[in-house]
Amino acid sequence: MAKIGFIGLGNMGSPMARNLVKAGHAVQVFDLNDEAMSVAVQFGAKRCASLQEAAKGVEFVVTMVPTGKETRAVYLGPDGIIAHASPGTVLLDSSTIDVESAQAVGAAAKAAGFEMMDTPVSGGVIGAENATLTFMCGGEAKTFEKAKAILGGMGKNLVHAGASGLGQAAKICNNMLAGICAAASAEAMVLGRNLGLDPKVLYGIITTSSGNNFSLQYSCAIPGVVPTAAVNRDFKPGFKAALMLKDLRLAQDAAKATGTPTAIGAAATQMYAMLDRAGHAELDSSAIVKLVTGDL
Amino acid sequence: MAKIGFIGLGNMGSPMARNLVKAGHAVQVFDLNDEAMSVAVQFGAKRCASLQEAAKGVEFVVTMVPTGKETRAVYLGPDGIIAHASPGTVLLDSSTIDVESAQAVGAAAKAAGFEMMDTPVSGGVIGAENATLTFMCGGEAKTFEKAKAILGGMGKNLVHAGASGLGQAAKICNNMLAGICAAASAEAMVLGRNLGLDPKVLYGIITTSSGNNFSLQYSCAIPGVVPTAAVNRDFKPGFKAALMLKDLRLAQDAAKATGTPTAIGAAATQMYAMLDRAGHAELDSSAIVKLVTGDL
Amino acid sequence: MAKIGFIGLGNMGSPMARNLVKAGHAVQVFDLNDEAMSVAVQFGAKRCASLQEAAKGVEFVVTMVPTGKETRAVYLGPDGIIAHASPGTVLLDSSTIDVESAQAVGAAAKAAGFEMMDTPVSGGVIGAENATLTFMCGGEAKTFEKAKAILGGMGKNLVHAGASGLGQAAKICNNMLAGICAAASAEAMVLGRNLGLDPKVLYGIITTSSGNNFSLQYSCAIPGVVPTAAVNRDFKPGFKAALMLKDLRLAQDAAKATGTPTAIGAAATQMYAMLDRAGHAELDSSAIVKLVTGDL
Amino acid sequence: MAKIGFIGLGNMGSPMARNLVKAGHAVQVFDLNDEAMSVAVQFGAKRCASLQEAAKGVEFVVTMVPTGKETRAVYLGPDGIIAHASPGTVLLDSSTIDVESAQAVGAAAKAAGFEMMDTPVSGGVIGAENATLTFMCGGEAKTFEKAKAILGGMGKNLVHAGASGLGQAAKICNNMLAGICAAASAEAMVLGRNLGLDPKVLYGIITTSSGNNFSLQYSCAIPGVVPTAAVNRDFKPGFKAALMLKDLRLAQDAAKATGTPTAIGAAATQMYAMLDRAGHAELDSSAIVKLVTGDL
Repeated sequence: MAKIGFIGLGNMGSPMARNLVKAGHAVQVFDLNDEAMSVAVQFGAKRCASLQEAAKGVEFVVTMVPTGKETRAVYLGPDGIIAHASPGTVLLDSSTIDVESAQAVGAAAKAAGFEMMDTPVSGGVIGAENATLTFMCGGEAKTFEKAKAILGGMGKNLVHAGASGLGQAAKICNNMLAGICAAASAEAMVLGRNLGLDPKVLYGIITTSSGNNFSLQYSCAIPGVVPTAAVNRDFKPGFKAALMLKDLRLAQDAAKATGTPTAIGAAATQMYAMLDRAGHAELDSSAIVKLVTGDL
Repeated sequence: MAKIGFIGLGNMGSPMARNLVKAGHAVQVFDLNDEAMSVAVQFGAKRCASLQEAAKGVEFVVTMVPTGKETRAVYLGPDGIIAHASPGTVLLDSSTIDVESAQAVGAAAKAAGFEMMDTPVSGGVIGAENATLTFMCGGEAKTFEKAKAILGGMGKNLVHAGASGLGQAAKICNNMLAGICAAASAEAMVLGRNLGLDPKVLYGIITTSSGNNFSLQYSCAIPGVVPTAAVNRDFKPGFKAALMLKDLRLAQDAAKATGTPTAIGAAATQMYAMLDRAGHAELDSSAIVKLVTGDL
Repeated sequence: MAKIGFIGLGNMGSPMARNLVKAGHAVQVFDLNDEAMSVAVQFGAKRCASLQEAAKGVEFVVTMVPTGKETRAVYLGPDGIIAHASPGTVLLDSSTIDVESAQAVGAAAKAAGFEMMDTPVSGGVIGAENATLTFMCGGEAKTFEKAKAILGGMGKNLVHAGASGLGQAAKICNNMLAGICAAASAEAMVLGRNLGLDPKVLYGIITTSSGNNFSLQYSCAIPGVVPTAAVNRDFKPGFKAALMLKDLRLAQDAAKATGTPTAIGAAATQMYAMLDRAGHAELDSSAIVKLVTGDL
Repeated sequence: MAKIGFIGLGNMGSPMARNLVKAGHAVQVFDLNDEAMSVAVQFGAKRCASLQEAAKGVEFVVTMVPTGKETRAVYLGPDGIIAHASPGTVLLDSSTIDVESAQAVGAAAKAAGFEMMDTPVSGGVIGAENATLTFMCGGEAKTFEKAKAILGGMGKNLVHAGASGLGQAAKICNNMLAGICAAASAEAMVLGRNLGLDPKVLYGIITTSSGNNFSLQYSCAIPGVVPTAAVNRDFKPGFKAALMLKDLRLAQDAAKATGTPTAIGAAATQMYAMLDRAGHAELDSSAIVKLVTGDL
């Protein structure tokens, strides 16, 4: 079992840290929110007084923060993890952030003699709670081998996407498609219903034909078609529209950085931006159907 | 075995008629192209001198023409099938056309005492040749039961989508999604490659994650990822970009007719319109990747 | 002064007919709505019992109906204007319709020996009331010369756009741009305000720079910038969003018919389709800003 | 007359510095490109050995660099302008950059006791050469008053857009509209031509109607309509497509930062991204018409 410093105890980070404790690791935590730390103490983690303390004297540091700005803040500079971690510590950033920040922090870690991976996840809060997350990992193969033991306590699908930053790259390419398919499937299903088709019949046809996609299959936004879909529980998430918008925008940032045209990705991003403005960012991402039905 | 009048011997119609002959039916054909009729005679069909002759004295009429305009032309008016078919003939239009025309012709047939279904197909020329087409059928249940025997000679997946016109409706909803996913998947794969990801690794990640879709899975537009994909044979179709554009535009027509917003569908339509203008309509629909790479 | 048959007394047609009376013409009218005819009698027009009666024995017929379907219905067939008008009558259709219908009806009129023009208008209800409409005319030059005397009583800007159908073509090209600029200007002004700019200052900068456009200049959708703009009267129209959507869709139809890519036109069309679904079609077209602010 | 340090002698910076010399100011320059400095010496500027030397002992520093990254690099840190400029120096950054960087650098300058303005320009290389640029200025009113004397030597339209960063904000809002109108006007004109309209007639109609906009009026992308337009000289710029794409992407960054939906802005951005990929970034921005005609 390993000694792990865990930083960032939000909706995702808290259950992830708990699963590391459950898996038998010695976990010390830090978060600016003291209440979140109290919860962590209750499930068996050790409270640290600072980011620096949490990062010191452990074999692994795992971070889970909102954006690239926070990742840079917690890793870089004289107060950062890289300046305070003990030699040989493996650094794992599970935040979903822009590729550029991931590569910048990865390069800084390497320059300081650390092995680091970007290890963003998919699977949402439920995946975090059930330890069924997918980890998309960017960094060296040897680091991936070391990280497996730890990540395996929090998820069940561990993928080595490539070099530093490419865990993030894989995640945003995948999630851009997921966001597009959510919006497009809502359009197709509402169009079909408006033309007079029984949504269940249409669902059956599309999911066995060339229009099939994961979003439609598991999150069909028409009531009564897929019983477990969020539309049947007033769009209680699941995967929040706000997070889908965040990921779609990360994809647009990556498209800008690489000069890649993404007309469909941009159109989906704008739909989520409108949904957000209309006040529905906290609903499940399948609520994008509201822009198609006008039920805003 | 049945007596069938088959009208429209194009790329799709010709192999469909041949499979009806193979299945043991007595097939009489008509097409304005005399050469196409000669081919049909060779595979065992009977040549008719006119549309009207082909439609007379048979149990089923099957039509396969390019657009709603031609469907209206061959069925309606004093020279049309409805005016010349023998009482009790079942009329099956396998053309892919707008819902409005399908319903107008269906209503005219019904008013004249005929059972009629719109029975558009998916599966392309290969499906037509191998008798593996999917038929999406719109009309009454009793007509669907009668049509099955005939359609089963040309395809293997027969779906009753609902009332008259809803075969077309189901097809265009499905194909709108297929067109969107083709364009979106090209964007995601090129974006990933530009970020430094190995396309095979990225393909493996997405096809097991929330971005998965049929277009990516079977028609990935990056060379060397899916061996059977059109990108590996210079985009020789498969399903032509011109047909994808046609179907996307039918979806836009249906969206207009029903007042359904389809922002993503419209964006995909425009990409195919640009690909068409750039001279690539005869390539496989996965050639939409050219707008993303700039290889035009 | 001329004898005129006027068909279609809606929001636009009624004040147009009244201005023809005011200009000294003898105007006989027909509309399916009897109340609209009573109003017309009060301003000095003669009530006719039928479309056919209104079209007979006059020098000019002017029609003002909602869509190409109605234009075809009132002109074509055994009960239509072409079958009942007296020889030598000049036919003017001021409806805003699709180019294809305009050309089909124009061709039928010509085949029957009539001169006909499509003469769609811009300027809205206020322009109709004040006789300040712009007429975009499609047909022969000699017909345009004859039409001028009549149209001059209803508008002040008479343009000969070209051959039959090209009046409609010019209108939808113009209105597509107007719709795009309305949506885009809303985006730019809200973006600027969100960045902290004073909307009046930003308006002053853009209207004297390369972003200037008619929609922004006269219909700026931020309150308090342009006093006469609809935003300052709860979006009371002006030019209804429903009509903007109609015109944008006519442009999309024309784009389809000619194979012209219009990615920006399609994106604007979809925004108006979403505004419509959200229940705001009866507001002024500048209410498109609601999708940008989220105030839906 | 003033002592001025000028940093960044590219296509824009070089003629701007020359106009400052012409206006009688004492100008000392620095650029990493030695050849550019030799040119500056020929028109009367003084060569400096370093950025720091150029920024020292002057009343004004003017910078003209490509992106926010370079602006941060030349102003911030121990080697930056803020660390080396003499007390009381007024700092003017004429680069077109993201609002966030402009505000960050502005705040750093203020914290160090300097007055600073973001003063991005419009008018292109021709405006720079002829001293007819427009300057959109963000900073305090008293700084704007001081800056006027200097900026007046390089341009003729000086606008105070508001506080720090709002010069950039105004520019990108304006240029987003300009980019949209360029693409949309190309669509409208090609659509009209494809419908059979004479482009000159259509141009005449739109420029006097509700579709009018600056891009169409001065840069109509159909040959032979506006003699001075870039289309008539093989799209020799003018304002390069690459710069239009840069500005559209800055607008998308600002939209992201403020949570503003910009569906039309995003669609135009993607068209320019496709034009760039197709190899036409160095042409005039009106070359966006190539995506509409397919002449790629």
